[in-house]
Amino acid sequence: MKAKFLIAAALLAAPALAEETPAPSPGEIVAAAPAGDWVPIDHQDLLVMDLAPDRESRPRRVVIQLIPAPFSEAWTANIRTLARARWWDGLAIVRAQDNYVVQWGDPDAEDKAKAKPLPPLVTTKESEYLAQTEQVMMVDGQASGMIPRPEVTLARSDPYAPSAGFALGWPIGFRWQSRAIWPVHCYGTVGVGRGMPPDAGSGAELYAVIGHAPRHLDRNIAVVGRVIEGIEHLSTLPRGSEALGFYKTPEERTPIAAIRLGSEVRGLPAYQYLSTESASFARYADARANRRDPFFIVPAGGADICNIPVPVRRAPG
Amino acid sequence: MKAKFLIAAALLAAPALAEETPAPSPGEIVAAAPAGDWVPIDHQDLLVMDLAPDRESRPRRVVIQLIPAPFSEAWTANIRTLARARWWDGLAIVRAQDNYVVQWGDPDAEDKAKAKPLPPLVTTKESEYLAQTEQVMMVDGQASGMIPRPEVTLARSDPYAPSAGFALGWPIGFRWQSRAIWPVHCYGTVGVGRGMPPDAGSGAELYAVIGHAPRHLDRNIAVVGRVIEGIEHLSTLPRGSEALGFYKTPEERTPIAAIRLGSEVRGLPAYQYLSTESASFARYADARANRRDPFFIVPAGGADICNIPVPVRRAPG
Repeated sequence: MKAKFLIAAALLAAPALAEETPAPSPGEIVAAAPAGDWVPIDHQDLLVMDLAPDRESRPRRVVIQLIPAPFSEAWTANIRTLARARWWDGLAIVRAQDNYVVQWGDPDAEDKAKAKPLPPLVTTKESEYLAQTEQVMMVDGQASGMIPRPEVTLARSDPYAPSAGFALGWPIGFRWQSRAIWPVHCYGTVGVGRGMPPDAGSGAELYAVIGHAPRHLDRNIAVVGRVIEGIEHLSTLPRGSEALGFYKTPEERTPIAAIRLGSEVRGLPAYQYLSTESASFARYADARANRRDPFFIVPAGGADICNIPVPVRRAPG
Repeated sequence: MKAKFLIAAALLAAPALAEETPAPSPGEIVAAAPAGDWVPIDHQDLLVMDLAPDRESRPRRVVIQLIPAPFSEAWTANIRTLARARWWDGLAIVRAQDNYVVQWGDPDAEDKAKAKPLPPLVTTKESEYLAQTEQVMMVDGQASGMIPRPEVTLARSDPYAPSAGFALGWPIGFRWQSRAIWPVHCYGTVGVGRGMPPDAGSGAELYAVIGHAPRHLDRNIAVVGRVIEGIEHLSTLPRGSEALGFYKTPEERTPIAAIRLGSEVRGLPAYQYLSTESASFARYADARANRRDPFFIVPAGGADICNIPVPVRRAPG
């Protein structure tokens, strides 16, 4: 692994400098990635949440990328329906639990008399849960392009899945034997709030992870997206004092001004993610697992899947 | 593993209810732990940081437990010296980087003319770094009590160490072959800020983790403690806009009113942690790795070391 990396690094560096140049940091590898390694994110796959401005009247925009098919399709369809219906406008952040999640939706959802009426939504039964969240990656008897590339697989195994890797730009757990793959919970992951089984949630109540990856939620809750910009507007919200971080009074909740699909938002920047099938990503993931940049004394020799965040940026120029 | 747990659960439940009682959640297991499974934390091992009050004049107290010997002794000795000298009083939180760390110390540390003079401190060379952070757990040729109990070891391996477990109430990485163990970085971990090697830091600049566990820092930075109360006063601080989350202007920094050893603070509550050698902790760790409480559909069959936080509480009564 180390030898392989050094050869790749030598190809990039001028021969005369090869021995003196310090190993690039993960950030330097990403900054040097060629334009062709970046994949544009369609505005139709973005969800733009504008919170009420903060005390200094500064805007607070959170940009979420929805997970692509075939993952969680029933829920992402509902989320598009809710955004087009402007259903979230005027609702609120209802919960902020330290080292866990921030959640938003209808504060009166549990009260039938006061709950905001929902547009027609797809319902998912518990029995369909795994079929929706866990995908078998075989197409016409062949492994599809979504099978994670083994060379990006981490040096040591994952505590929550037989293996972990990346597919279509997302961190996933997988089992080679059954060719099953599923999206996992990392910092910034957006998922579907739900009650006790057989409730599987509709997508009207969403949460974003603001702490250590709650991987025990994998395959128990539908992953529908990830925050790609503005997560600090969620992670710095005051924590709620009630159980699970719910706010005690309506005044403590942060109002949602609007949630829209990116395709409905004028002037939205173009975003890109670093292809997880690119050579740049493989080098970046390797550098995250084996820090050779000058600050580090002992490289770890491995990394957990959530400590290799997929790079996302505004398109340059 | 499952059968073993069910037997233990049956012993606790009334026989007639054994089949109907849902499996206890990790929190319920901790709440039911007998008093003898809790270990008092000496006030001499606490560091109490009072930030300036917030906008509503509410106090902001952060309580940190210092890591016990033999870990990081050179640095915890310096931290005690600095607290007794009231060195941090009037200094500030200088950095808040989302999903990473909040750091405090002397904003003028890099400017020799303006830097606050330090009391006499122990210096650590890079060559002593591993000897300080990584401990060989042999006492008179015998494995000492600090060797982690194998039954608490997680179901799957750790991405950053040959194995991971708990010793003396702290999460650790370890290698059985050489009997080496070292403390790891989880949410809330407090470590020693430093520059490039061979600088090993003095302990005057400290940080607390406010995001996904940055395990790549293990053995590269000295772990000196963990936040046991009030971390929300750090995790909700506005993020800095400069590189690495440093604040751009002095006005953005949060002033530190005082940092004291717990033994110097009047009226400080008594704190306890759940012994990581207790049967209650083993059951709690197992329940974190295999969620059987009613919310969960698919237990993970494993957990990462940082997703099994060691329970800490104020002593009851």
